[in-house]
Amino acid sequence: MNQVKVFAPATIANVACGFDVLGLALDYPGDEVVVKKTDSHEVVITACHNAENLPLDADKNVAGVAIKALLNKLGSKQGFELELTKGVKPGSGIGSSAASSAAAVVAVNELLGNPFTRKELVEFAMEGEKCATGVAHADNVAPSICGGFTLVRSYDPLDVIKIDSPDELWATVIHPQLEVKTRDARRVLKGGIDLSKAITQWGNVGGLVAGLYSKDYDLIGRSLVDVVIEPIRSILIPGYEKVKKATINAGALGCSISGSGPSIFGLSRGEETALKVKEAMAEVYTQFGVDFEIHVSQVNSEGAKIIGE
Amino acid sequence: MNQVKVFAPATIANVACGFDVLGLALDYPGDEVVVKKTDSHEVVITACHNAENLPLDADKNVAGVAIKALLNKLGSKQGFELELTKGVKPGSGIGSSAASSAAAVVAVNELLGNPFTRKELVEFAMEGEKCATGVAHADNVAPSICGGFTLVRSYDPLDVIKIDSPDELWATVIHPQLEVKTRDARRVLKGGIDLSKAITQWGNVGGLVAGLYSKDYDLIGRSLVDVVIEPIRSILIPGYEKVKKATINAGALGCSISGSGPSIFGLSRGEETALKVKEAMAEVYTQFGVDFEIHVSQVNSEGAKIIGE
Repeated sequence: MNQVKVFAPATIANVACGFDVLGLALDYPGDEVVVKKTDSHEVVITACHNAENLPLDADKNVAGVAIKALLNKLGSKQGFELELTKGVKPGSGIGSSAASSAAAVVAVNELLGNPFTRKELVEFAMEGEKCATGVAHADNVAPSICGGFTLVRSYDPLDVIKIDSPDELWATVIHPQLEVKTRDARRVLKGGIDLSKAITQWGNVGGLVAGLYSKDYDLIGRSLVDVVIEPIRSILIPGYEKVKKATINAGALGCSISGSGPSIFGLSRGEETALKVKEAMAEVYTQFGVDFEIHVSQVNSEGAKIIGE
Repeated sequence: MNQVKVFAPATIANVACGFDVLGLALDYPGDEVVVKKTDSHEVVITACHNAENLPLDADKNVAGVAIKALLNKLGSKQGFELELTKGVKPGSGIGSSAASSAAAVVAVNELLGNPFTRKELVEFAMEGEKCATGVAHADNVAPSICGGFTLVRSYDPLDVIKIDSPDELWATVIHPQLEVKTRDARRVLKGGIDLSKAITQWGNVGGLVAGLYSKDYDLIGRSLVDVVIEPIRSILIPGYEKVKKATINAGALGCSISGSGPSIFGLSRGEETALKVKEAMAEVYTQFGVDFEIHVSQVNSEGAKIIGE
């Protein structure tokens, strides 16, 4: 095999209570990459469709950086050419850079005969994240590569745990067309937090993980609470409180900020409720006269996938 | 039924990463209570064996306080007489007050025809904890009443989640004969913690819960890490670092402080390893010339139980 086409999905990082550790994969949108082996020793990005202002220089493009990290680990000088098609809008807060990095490393791994497991690929894709945001976080790349929910238990050493999503869990994500750069959003966070809030947060992380394993949708809903990050970051998202209220009123189990925003997600039991949430979310930003994109998707179970040659 | 005898087990609160939210029940030791209905409208404690300096005044004894909280909720004026036999030494850090409160409320609930579920009993036993330590925490009473591991996801409203323990999980607990009062140990904790440490902690809580559900003993072991409380509280326990090192070297999955100490626990896969841990722990305090008690027990799955009339 000399060429492969890979789709990697958008992701919701943090998932309310799990700042920097939890994430989940959507079925769509996602990024596509076509990668082929070349006889050169270079990694060359030939095009980046739908996001023309992203750099094509492989040392500055997250996909190129991620691939080079993988090749470095192998000590390989194999050359690759890749063509990227963005389906996840940069700056949306649903893991745009992560989807590109994830697709790239899964594709290259496939072309090299899969020397790495899915979980092992996460650390290479994290180098893409470092290039994009300054921080090598894994909470978007891990679910984009592995699917389902992922828990990054530890960064040193990297320890990624995949947690299967209950079948009926659906996400609705609205992306109001306001750009909040991750680097800026992280700066808003102060260095210290109250012990009491930290305890609340780890209680909810435990509750969410328990809810996922036991398929207890009510427990999942009760645990989708963020007392640490959301109160600070939500200030940066006009209309946040109204969207959240409308989402809960429409029947969602919970609602919070996707990653560092501005996208806002709701999780629901079943597609029907997820579609009601879509209507409710859309109505708020329609009233505000803010353009938006909105996605309704089951939680994706498999992560990045090979879709052709 | 006019009289009942109940056994409620000792417990390990916090379980390394889950300060104030996680706990587990042991098979033994535990407290026993014999409770009988009386024609008076009083709650009377007739004896407290093995801990003669605990108050018999029902408004000052945790068992009496817990029973009165239960009766208040029901609006009942039923009288009870109880005789307590302590098996869990006060001040040991394995839930001594909690075992008494748990046994008392389970007994009274039984005599009243079980108006409350096990989980509902937790809030009454918490009043006993408030009497004992000044804080109505649930991380000892919940596992003593419910068994297994318990996660107190939230206090307001109270939300207790029971998590079954994998069959092969054993605990070894050493109680060096040094008394550390819970009230004092809590005072050592500062009000704020680093966000980075909080993130590590909730990653580990998520990992531990995932490990319990998936029966992944290695993941359980990797998650038994406390970067917030243990570094501060362990200073109060002479020999702590040596015991921890010996415990891990003997094959335990992890080791930390039980509750607020001074007891130290190790969790192991299988009884054989738990017994090796016992030898290793005992050796350290024998060398130091410190008296100790040591218990080896599977994690208890059922919590407080009726053992006679």
